[in-house]
Amino acid sequence: MHNIREVPLIMLGLGNVGRALLRQILAARETVTERRRVRLVPVALADVSGLLCDPAGLSDETLERALAVVSAGQLVAAVPGAQPALTLDAVLRPGTILADLTASPATLPTLHAALACGAGVVLANKLPLGRRWEEARVLFEHPNVRYEVTVGAGLPVIATLRYLLDTGDRVARIEGCLSGTLGYLCAQLEAGVPYSEAVSQARALGYTEPDPREDLGGKDVGRKALILARTAGWPLEPDAITIEALYSESLATASTEEFMKALGVHDADYRERVGAARTHGCTLRYVAEVCPTGGTVGLREVPQSSALGALRGPGNYVALYTERYAEIPLVIAGPGAGPEVTAAGVLGDILALASSGYA
Amino acid sequence: MHNIREVPLIMLGLGNVGRALLRQILAARETVTERRRVRLVPVALADVSGLLCDPAGLSDETLERALAVVSAGQLVAAVPGAQPALTLDAVLRPGTILADLTASPATLPTLHAALACGAGVVLANKLPLGRRWEEARVLFEHPNVRYEVTVGAGLPVIATLRYLLDTGDRVARIEGCLSGTLGYLCAQLEAGVPYSEAVSQARALGYTEPDPREDLGGKDVGRKALILARTAGWPLEPDAITIEALYSESLATASTEEFMKALGVHDADYRERVGAARTHGCTLRYVAEVCPTGGTVGLREVPQSSALGALRGPGNYVALYTERYAEIPLVIAGPGAGPEVTAAGVLGDILALASSGYA
Repeated sequence: MHNIREVPLIMLGLGNVGRALLRQILAARETVTERRRVRLVPVALADVSGLLCDPAGLSDETLERALAVVSAGQLVAAVPGAQPALTLDAVLRPGTILADLTASPATLPTLHAALACGAGVVLANKLPLGRRWEEARVLFEHPNVRYEVTVGAGLPVIATLRYLLDTGDRVARIEGCLSGTLGYLCAQLEAGVPYSEAVSQARALGYTEPDPREDLGGKDVGRKALILARTAGWPLEPDAITIEALYSESLATASTEEFMKALGVHDADYRERVGAARTHGCTLRYVAEVCPTGGTVGLREVPQSSALGALRGPGNYVALYTERYAEIPLVIAGPGAGPEVTAAGVLGDILALASSGYA
Repeated sequence: MHNIREVPLIMLGLGNVGRALLRQILAARETVTERRRVRLVPVALADVSGLLCDPAGLSDETLERALAVVSAGQLVAAVPGAQPALTLDAVLRPGTILADLTASPATLPTLHAALACGAGVVLANKLPLGRRWEEARVLFEHPNVRYEVTVGAGLPVIATLRYLLDTGDRVARIEGCLSGTLGYLCAQLEAGVPYSEAVSQARALGYTEPDPREDLGGKDVGRKALILARTAGWPLEPDAITIEALYSESLATASTEEFMKALGVHDADYRERVGAARTHGCTLRYVAEVCPTGGTVGLREVPQSSALGALRGPGNYVALYTERYAEIPLVIAGPGAGPEVTAAGVLGDILALASSGYA
């Protein structure tokens, strides 16, 4: 009944999310074509080492080889035909979709170039969206940009927010737990595990970055709060979000090793805060909250019987308070991390953009 | 940067949802045009009395007059230019969107005709979707059909389900509380209010249909469960959903008045069930559950501390258990009723269909 459209795809970044996406694209090719009448054609793959590129579409053989590359930055060394120079001129054109699956602060000019030439952009990378409003603005306002997975991974948070706004609702306030890592930490503290042990465990389980301060500092959650606020229509600057770090200022400049050794200095403090919360019928959660004038991100006492208090482990939770959902919020919840669900969210964005016939 | 597309719109039904939708379209016209580059042009409005129709677009004056009609079925009597004959031939064409906002079992042939001529269809009406699979199938399989608000009103339940399937996930089980009315009833029973009083209150507050058996019978929830199952890809027949009614068989044929008088016969039974649940640390909820082979809809004991147990009043709750969300489900929750949020959901569907450039 309908023709199948070919949509060229450029992928920047071949880490866990990039590889999961490539696998999903290969595995779901028939489903996608049948259900959405779109065929995604990878035309370029890039990692920090360089670029694989073929305007006619990379062969399945080449894609499989790229998938077999084990460590990041090995594309040029491991796959024949990959070039060290990263120039996308041969493939950037209207109707192409560029997916930024890196965690790099340096992709912004490439994203701007893609939009300028009529390509669409899908971001898993939060950094460009967290820049000063002047720099980030186009990413929030351009109709050909999607960034669903930057908040809640595969959970449809941004899409829901957009749908409310598109249909004339007004957002008053957004509240949520946006970090699986810090959710795990809070649950451990609640269960009586000392702070130092909980952080060490989380690190050993791979829930944190190699330097846990990346997570404990709250900047990542702050960036998600900023992305929610900007999507809601509030052009906030990064410093409008007040962030509480879960370690003391004095440990900010220590080496990772020193930091891990010094964790115990916080045990008594967090034990006390958990105990105080309990006497109020509450528990501690790392909560993000934004409204039109700014936001806060930090540890907060929430009633044990509340939805936030009932949250366990890696669960994410976002409550949208709007004109229409004023008393009881619209809630999206579920696991908000992991390469598979993140890649699925990116694929969802790519399909939404491809189906919007924007080009 | 992009041209604005005019999308002709046919609206069947001018009840609470139809009127709320028309108001939202008029109020959000500029927002929608700016954000989605689409201008919705109502070309026909119909209620049971007849039709207002102008292929060039009904004037704002005419639309305002239609909005001023107070009771259903008064369109022809109250608005100059409305015709008693319901023939859409003048406006059914490719690219048009027809919204079925009725609660009528009789619209199915019109929906089929719309799809056959290349129009899109948006349903707030659950009845066509709940027919035998053979009759309903096209509504679930045709790419130009949307029916978000038939489950959870404005909550993005169907969209989320579709996104998971589109990106290659597989649904294992869906569980939820899908009736604000029965949610209210359960909360009242939990608070110690006798069944007869809780039902009378719900009716007095307008939460139930004039004959409360329409709600208590569970058929509406059963239909929602069937819609979820069929969307998940399971072509179930209506009798695959087992439904527990919240009144006894012996009262099925009584008049409404007789039924309301006889409510007290159930008080002891429900008091006992609430008490039994409490001794297990549970509370009663009217729960729908579907899996690939069938489903059940009925009163169930759920732990007080669970998400379902924590649900209050008109809250709806849908948990999707899939291959990707296997242990912790993806949850959508919030108030799932009311003309404003329902109309917003319909508007969301219309915009999604219009932006998909399907025609």
